[in-house]
Amino acid sequence: MSERINPDLQKERDAATFDVEELSVLLHNGAHELEKKRKLEELVRNDPDYKSLPFDFLSREAQYEEGVRRSTIAVAKKDQLDSLIENHGDLITYNTHVGRGRAGPFNLHTGMFIPTLVKQGSPEQVAKWLPLSEDYEIIGTYAQTEMGHGTFLRGLETTAHYDPHTQEFVLNSPTTTSIKWWPGALGKTSTHAVVLAQLYTLGKCHGIHAFVVQLRSLEDHKSLPGITVGDIGPKFGYGANDNGFLKLSNHRIPRENMLMKYSKVAPDGSYNKPPKSTLTYGTMTFVRAMIVRGSAQAIAQGATIAIRYSAVRRQSEMRPGEPEPQVLSYPTQQYKLFPLLCAAYAFHFVQVKMIEAYSEVTELVNKGDFSRTQELHALSSGLKAYTSAISNTGLEVCRTSCGGHGYSCASGFPALYTNFTPSVTYEGENTVLLLQCARYLVKCTRDLRSGAKLPGSVAYLSCGCDPSSIGKDFTNVKTLDSLYKQRALGLIRFASGKVDASMAGGMDLVGALNESSVHLVRAAVAHSHYFVVRNFFEKLSMLASTSQPLMEVLHQLSLFYALDGIAQHSGEFLEDGLLSGEDVKQIRQLTVDMLPRIRVNAVALVDSFEFGDDVLGSVLGRYDGNVYENLFKWAQNSPLNKTDVHPSYHKYLQPLLQRNKSKL
Amino acid sequence: MSERINPDLQKERDAATFDVEELSVLLHNGAHELEKKRKLEELVRNDPDYKSLPFDFLSREAQYEEGVRRSTIAVAKKDQLDSLIENHGDLITYNTHVGRGRAGPFNLHTGMFIPTLVKQGSPEQVAKWLPLSEDYEIIGTYAQTEMGHGTFLRGLETTAHYDPHTQEFVLNSPTTTSIKWWPGALGKTSTHAVVLAQLYTLGKCHGIHAFVVQLRSLEDHKSLPGITVGDIGPKFGYGANDNGFLKLSNHRIPRENMLMKYSKVAPDGSYNKPPKSTLTYGTMTFVRAMIVRGSAQAIAQGATIAIRYSAVRRQSEMRPGEPEPQVLSYPTQQYKLFPLLCAAYAFHFVQVKMIEAYSEVTELVNKGDFSRTQELHALSSGLKAYTSAISNTGLEVCRTSCGGHGYSCASGFPALYTNFTPSVTYEGENTVLLLQCARYLVKCTRDLRSGAKLPGSVAYLSCGCDPSSIGKDFTNVKTLDSLYKQRALGLIRFASGKVDASMAGGMDLVGALNESSVHLVRAAVAHSHYFVVRNFFEKLSMLASTSQPLMEVLHQLSLFYALDGIAQHSGEFLEDGLLSGEDVKQIRQLTVDMLPRIRVNAVALVDSFEFGDDVLGSVLGRYDGNVYENLFKWAQNSPLNKTDVHPSYHKYLQPLLQRNKSKL
Repeated sequence: MSERINPDLQKERDAATFDVEELSVLLHNGAHELEKKRKLEELVRNDPDYKSLPFDFLSREAQYEEGVRRSTIAVAKKDQLDSLIENHGDLITYNTHVGRGRAGPFNLHTGMFIPTLVKQGSPEQVAKWLPLSEDYEIIGTYAQTEMGHGTFLRGLETTAHYDPHTQEFVLNSPTTTSIKWWPGALGKTSTHAVVLAQLYTLGKCHGIHAFVVQLRSLEDHKSLPGITVGDIGPKFGYGANDNGFLKLSNHRIPRENMLMKYSKVAPDGSYNKPPKSTLTYGTMTFVRAMIVRGSAQAIAQGATIAIRYSAVRRQSEMRPGEPEPQVLSYPTQQYKLFPLLCAAYAFHFVQVKMIEAYSEVTELVNKGDFSRTQELHALSSGLKAYTSAISNTGLEVCRTSCGGHGYSCASGFPALYTNFTPSVTYEGENTVLLLQCARYLVKCTRDLRSGAKLPGSVAYLSCGCDPSSIGKDFTNVKTLDSLYKQRALGLIRFASGKVDASMAGGMDLVGALNESSVHLVRAAVAHSHYFVVRNFFEKLSMLASTSQPLMEVLHQLSLFYALDGIAQHSGEFLEDGLLSGEDVKQIRQLTVDMLPRIRVNAVALVDSFEFGDDVLGSVLGRYDGNVYENLFKWAQNSPLNKTDVHPSYHKYLQPLLQRNKSKL
Repeated sequence: MSERINPDLQKERDAATFDVEELSVLLHNGAHELEKKRKLEELVRNDPDYKSLPFDFLSREAQYEEGVRRSTIAVAKKDQLDSLIENHGDLITYNTHVGRGRAGPFNLHTGMFIPTLVKQGSPEQVAKWLPLSEDYEIIGTYAQTEMGHGTFLRGLETTAHYDPHTQEFVLNSPTTTSIKWWPGALGKTSTHAVVLAQLYTLGKCHGIHAFVVQLRSLEDHKSLPGITVGDIGPKFGYGANDNGFLKLSNHRIPRENMLMKYSKVAPDGSYNKPPKSTLTYGTMTFVRAMIVRGSAQAIAQGATIAIRYSAVRRQSEMRPGEPEPQVLSYPTQQYKLFPLLCAAYAFHFVQVKMIEAYSEVTELVNKGDFSRTQELHALSSGLKAYTSAISNTGLEVCRTSCGGHGYSCASGFPALYTNFTPSVTYEGENTVLLLQCARYLVKCTRDLRSGAKLPGSVAYLSCGCDPSSIGKDFTNVKTLDSLYKQRALGLIRFASGKVDASMAGGMDLVGALNESSVHLVRAAVAHSHYFVVRNFFEKLSMLASTSQPLMEVLHQLSLFYALDGIAQHSGEFLEDGLLSGEDVKQIRQLTVDMLPRIRVNAVALVDSFEFGDDVLGSVLGRYDGNVYENLFKWAQNSPLNKTDVHPSYHKYLQPLLQRNKSKL
């Protein structure tokens, strides 16, 4: 950090009406956790082993190599961290810092390979492979997605045929579309993979099962016979990761390599089915909760860069002779960025809620109570899709709000966006997830008719529909809650009604759901949006020890979030008569009137997220606001600037420029 | 093109209800132009000099070098094109093909440097520099944008002080923010630049003027004394372009290097002001018209890839045992893509209109009639912002509609998006442009009060506001036109009213406009949207010789475009009572009901745009639909696949994997 802070930025900080440290502590789950995060970040920041050019200046190959270098160093340094690393989350914090926010080549080893081993392996299998994995004597990945199938797992085509004579499975990629495609670190890094394949034994297919497959020699890292692995080529982002392909040709693995905690294949080939396989739900739900967290962090990061830069950037004289205003002073700029700032807060509180809900339900499941898994699955599906979609488009709004400089890698946005955007398609494509959520909502609507009691997040579905009961005080939390509730109810009932009508006309449920899918998606969005709004209000009402000044600011954010959401989706509040045209105009004006009050704290509100400069990776979003001189410094690293005259001049430009001379 | 066409794609083509060739001819401005385009594209396609790896596999440096190589070859081959190149548009077609749709390093030479010379240079200056430029004995760029100022030109800080003793201008970059930043080809390629700077002579500042500045030696390409130039570093896209910086330190140029067609500085330093400088308006308007065309092409290209791939991709069994449906069969997929397909058509017709309007107004201006320049400026500003914003977000919708594979560079989307997205911030940042458009609309509203007659695109502002006169037949073109008209009127009058109210309260116009800017932006969007809808209907009504089957399809597209626009912005139609909630529900259902009819022709509709496979640069969007086998082939080019074991293994992974062994 530089000593001198840009004076415009300093002025913003000085004007804040609340204590940044208090909010930071709140956002980081207490003073202890915040302190730990700071120490871990400092450790990486001060470590000369982690100094290098920004990734953006490196070629794809060099990015991969740098990713491997950093990851291997991080493993070696694990010991010196032991006092600081209290849980897996701390390790993630450290690794995120080491990878400068980019997915490193060991992410799937620690995040998927090892957890799958532990959850799906028999005790013997865990005993065999876990120590090797934890010691990095093998490096694993998780090979599920194929070229032809992503979200629809049952469609996977890789086969594992059991051969009782040799007690081996014979693995094959029978078609081009069956080639494993996308798994991280599969191309060049991993020695092993958990491969998902259709299990065949004694002439019968038993569906998808997981197999541990060695890919590369532990002697010389060469790919094994029957294994064709490689890198799938350049992507929008993820340059440091060797997302790979895997083609299996009559590759044999021992029977013991099928993960057998639940399903089992005996030496003679007989198959044993597991009693209940709800644990996979848990994993998927957890991963989706993590994406909700990622969505919160991504939009917080984008807002940090855009808001700080908007405070530093001055543009366009309003009146001749007057100084150019800070871009942050323009209402249009505020109207772009403050909804996203508020979303960052709303999403923060909803990811906390999601993780709490996950823990609660996991505890129930461990006691054999599966009553809430469906609800949690629907909730996590809806929230993953809803929050990731908003953050995804929001990041691009943040980027373009920085004008031309947003387009430079110096802004940090290209890396941030391209690393985040897979969230909308992976771990369940968003539209598919919204339809799964909606399907559950339709089911709940039907269950109500038979007198069922609905759990927490959907209990409101039993409420009556009465627009006239909604008050007109639009700064009242209860009024806003009712509005969102009634909007969701209206859309859910409308979509359910369409499904019912199709079925009454003789269609089956699947067909009826498909025919009404456009309406179902809207219903699921409204449901998820309502959950986020309600949770924002609820969480604030539960903050007991928070100071009055901070409470006021947070309350403002929640109000603005709810009001702006209505203004943006006004049609859905007007269609069923929840609001009149005049109401909507009033609500929009309320949001416009609130802009200056939020602006006072905007910089302090993003400071509270505490993204270090090295995680932000943004010249525009620097904490010290010294943007321009550092933009110039940054550019000097461009490989094109190694020489004044680029070598290609002699090859191409000189012959062109001097061709007439040479004719003489 | 391969012989075998993917059968799913062939089936779609066979089902089309219109003749693709007829539509292609219409879209390409007649059979002659279409034929020429095909020949130019074939020329590039079959030329072994233009064979190379896709840009995505190249490092930034290699991309730049390949860009220079292709561009210099294209210049050398110019002679063999003479029979085909009839106008500047044909040259652009050829160069776009040569650069595989990416901005080449000579784009600003031909697109800005030469035109500026011609338009702003005195006859002597044109005689001196034009032949050198056309012969590529010098290569120029256009250096306007600085680190601290983009859209706001008056804020530029570069200075040009006239020294009467030596009859030279002394150029300086007095601050860090004054460093020229972003101009294409400035970093490494250009030998010259038109530099915009504040002119000082005899102690007085006369504002921004253009100067021809030599940057590099014509002998050895070294940068000249007083000139610091270089590459600004990596960006989101534009890897083949050396967007550059330029820092001037007491750099002297002869008096004759100020472009003096209009303003003049005499040898003694006395300054002569031009009589009228409206020509710059013309240039800006033309560039914006070109961006409207670019927006139409970008979204057409995105829709081509996404719709073809959606016809090939099959996913998720609806009912056990049934074949997996084509993704294109899902209503949710159709609901994502068809609005964008229709937008591609709407934008095509509006870019035609924009260029017609530009020609008309230019003709008037040449006759000394400036009466329509303001209208045209407002229209081009609004349409540039509106269409580029829709295409920008639309491209990402297209990409994510392709699921995970959209994220691979093999999809073509990363290149397409990163090359297009600068359109929303350059040549006038979109929000600033919408405010300029709105400012004109406010002015028109005021002019009406004093009885003025408004020109073409804004004549409707004099219409009465009468929601009850709008019919209820929502498939009637007149009804839809009225709805859009009344929505625009409502929002423009609302915003104007806010401005009036602020001024009545004692605020000046600038302050009032700023205070209402959020409302003004909405008004400008509604105005531009209405123009696009109305023009779509009008253009179709003027197609005289078009066949009945094609007319029906185009009519469907225009209807869907208008109806879907209402469904998407329903709030704005409901707020002022133009529609009831039931009307909106009916309109949304109409769009859903139209989906299958559009689907029948979807593939044929994108085929008609005729993007060659080499321009699309997309494995997913290939004309032959042979996606998967080519995805596998494509990936083999990855630099990480040069060897089975990546060199970094020996450096980093091996020591990690085998560290326990070595301990023994």
